[in-house]
Amino acid sequence: MATGYVWLRNMSTFTGRLYSVQIDPNELPGIDKLGVKNYRSLLDIPEPVDYVLVAVPRSVAPRIIADCIKKGVGGASLFTSGFAETHSEQGETLQETLVALAREANLNLIGPNCMGVFNPNLGVRQDINQYHGQSGPVGFISQSGTHAIFFSQVGARHGLLISKSVSYGNGAVMDSPDYLEYFAEDADTKVIGLYVEGVKDGRRFLDSLRGAARKKPVLVWKGGLGEEGCRAISSHTGSLASAPVLWDSLVKQCGAIRIDNLDEMVDCMKTILYVNPPLGSRVALVAQSGGQSVVIADAFTKAGLTAPLLSQTSYQQFATFFNTIGGTYLNPLDTSWHAPSIKDSVRILDILSTDENVDSLVAELSLPFLSQIWDFYPPYLDDLVAALADFKSRCSKAFLVVVSAGQLEEAALTVRNKLMEKGIPSFPSFDRVARALAKVAEYHRSHGR
Amino acid sequence: MATGYVWLRNMSTFTGRLYSVQIDPNELPGIDKLGVKNYRSLLDIPEPVDYVLVAVPRSVAPRIIADCIKKGVGGASLFTSGFAETHSEQGETLQETLVALAREANLNLIGPNCMGVFNPNLGVRQDINQYHGQSGPVGFISQSGTHAIFFSQVGARHGLLISKSVSYGNGAVMDSPDYLEYFAEDADTKVIGLYVEGVKDGRRFLDSLRGAARKKPVLVWKGGLGEEGCRAISSHTGSLASAPVLWDSLVKQCGAIRIDNLDEMVDCMKTILYVNPPLGSRVALVAQSGGQSVVIADAFTKAGLTAPLLSQTSYQQFATFFNTIGGTYLNPLDTSWHAPSIKDSVRILDILSTDENVDSLVAELSLPFLSQIWDFYPPYLDDLVAALADFKSRCSKAFLVVVSAGQLEEAALTVRNKLMEKGIPSFPSFDRVARALAKVAEYHRSHGR
Repeated sequence: MATGYVWLRNMSTFTGRLYSVQIDPNELPGIDKLGVKNYRSLLDIPEPVDYVLVAVPRSVAPRIIADCIKKGVGGASLFTSGFAETHSEQGETLQETLVALAREANLNLIGPNCMGVFNPNLGVRQDINQYHGQSGPVGFISQSGTHAIFFSQVGARHGLLISKSVSYGNGAVMDSPDYLEYFAEDADTKVIGLYVEGVKDGRRFLDSLRGAARKKPVLVWKGGLGEEGCRAISSHTGSLASAPVLWDSLVKQCGAIRIDNLDEMVDCMKTILYVNPPLGSRVALVAQSGGQSVVIADAFTKAGLTAPLLSQTSYQQFATFFNTIGGTYLNPLDTSWHAPSIKDSVRILDILSTDENVDSLVAELSLPFLSQIWDFYPPYLDDLVAALADFKSRCSKAFLVVVSAGQLEEAALTVRNKLMEKGIPSFPSFDRVARALAKVAEYHRSHGR
Repeated sequence: MATGYVWLRNMSTFTGRLYSVQIDPNELPGIDKLGVKNYRSLLDIPEPVDYVLVAVPRSVAPRIIADCIKKGVGGASLFTSGFAETHSEQGETLQETLVALAREANLNLIGPNCMGVFNPNLGVRQDINQYHGQSGPVGFISQSGTHAIFFSQVGARHGLLISKSVSYGNGAVMDSPDYLEYFAEDADTKVIGLYVEGVKDGRRFLDSLRGAARKKPVLVWKGGLGEEGCRAISSHTGSLASAPVLWDSLVKQCGAIRIDNLDEMVDCMKTILYVNPPLGSRVALVAQSGGQSVVIADAFTKAGLTAPLLSQTSYQQFATFFNTIGGTYLNPLDTSWHAPSIKDSVRILDILSTDENVDSLVAELSLPFLSQIWDFYPPYLDDLVAALADFKSRCSKAFLVVVSAGQLEEAALTVRNKLMEKGIPSFPSFDRVARALAKVAEYHRSHGR
């Protein structure tokens, strides 16, 4: 374990006992300073070892893995890279050696060329900036260390905490199907995210995916669309990528949700975990200006959802109070003149929530507009968020909020946090909320809900 | 002019002489307090009037417009709504009256149902939060007041300042072709953005668009994709929307750039104004991790651009120093181990900038990664930005930066600002930079550049 004790620091939050194995005498004072007991060999550690993080030069890796096997450790994760992904003879031979060793001994080997396990409850981390001592319902499986770490950190800012996560790199021994099977059974995990670059055994992958998707929502993000992406994958994890068109339909047939990027992963998970399941594709769209009413409608059209005309009951109720000069309640709604009034805003939502033509409600909060109110009356924002939380608690339909930041990008982060604290999922653009709702609605439909 | 003196406040930055016209005695003390001279009629103002902002009840509007005509004003903008967009007999009749009055007298009437003119140099504004006393090269024409105001404010955060902008609402008298013709000739305007919901005279619109696009880049964002968007448009500006498929190809044939939303408007304008014209679709993609090298490649594939293999000369240069264990320079590049070194980063860019297979360079700055460096050595960020600015100044190809925020969303805004101050355009995601570069590259290609 070298490079500035990065891994010892990452693991400094581990709630169990942490040991270092290092033979370079120059490194020992630094390790001592971190308060970590060092041994010259894994085999010298005087108790059983559950998890070994291996970060040694690649040529040394087989010796350390052999030690892991002798010691009978619970599992090992190999950070070291320079194996099959280099497409060099030395790299490929070394990887074959590792695989043979691990297979024969039935060692749970993660990697190589990976960031290993993130278990926030136990304080086992992949990166110094990951949280610990708290956890959530999201299991994450990633062939990329960057995406595993980014997702854990970006997700945390959106109310998506990790149960356990694994970065598995080349997947030389344990591959995506093994992790899918684990998370499918894991009681702490309510939803599974997967970033995959390549699959070695297509049939086994699809079987595992189908099995997992029967038990809980699985979101699959496949890297490698074209020639360039496949070239990147080949250098990154040494995987062979497959034709995206075929892949997409297979993933859907397995009952999983196909995801295009990390933002969409976050958006769809938020929708799954924080939103009532939409029972159809009909959405009531509430914008706070005429211009935005057009744009929100376009975003939902593009995503394949519909904003139908409302029921006569709703229109009769709107007709009693709604100002249609510089506004409309047809759907999409333009609430311009009513938006400043929290009472009116909730009244509008309450009418929509009981409309028989509507499965989901999406409401805009336009900050350039609303900030002019809270600049004069600062409690306005908290009052508004509280009223929306009240509404959400009594609304049996899917309810999602879009925060239109305009130039107020910093304020938008504050508003998102305030909403999140009350369990209200918000989205930064009409396109993003529309795509997430469309994918999650389709998921529920395909599962017969 | 009512509603809390909003318009008098908007115009408080006007560098010329500002007058109020108000007959309600209750309002006079408030106007006086703002230091604005009030008259009971437009006709009482003792000097010529260039621009009148009309915000009166709709039934009063024709009388005020008649006064504008008598006074011989330069132009008038009618904020008042409640005309054809309400599809009521009263609204439609009132609009016809206004049109007849203005047409007969050849009055430059903007609107109704609009926010009028934003001329930041003169301090004529549409909104209290718009800037003044500075201006830029962007002319903006918007059928929606919200989009005009949002664009001016969001654009300013991205280095896109307005020369003049107009929100024209129902476009009853002066319509998009009139504004296109104006901005085509306007010497202060180097690039034109247009948000349009509907067009009254298709042939005239296309002629104006073609004429303007011959003189400067024109970016056209059309609202109203499906049934719902058209319903929203009908209530918003009373326009009839047209089939989007036909529209798209007509806009392209006119030599304009078709835009899908406000973010894309900002991204493409940044690319046009701050990036050397890309001479083709071949891009060198520089990511700071393997996982991101896959995602950036996918984004460019999706956008229709290519990341080809580099020239042998480049590969020979890379082979002398580039660490390919946990990295690759094939294209996309994964610079993991070199990314912390500013010297290496610039060296990599310099090699790419002279590669004959490359038209554009796109480089990622991954903040979760780089922040670990500047946390230890704070000047790092400014040094990096300065080095990138140096590189940009000697690079004859298109050079664009992507800031991968991860969880560091606040820091990402700081980094974007620092880059912008040095004239380096940055983008918040691979998808956004890829789409912008693809559209702008296609634009230059279609104009034979």
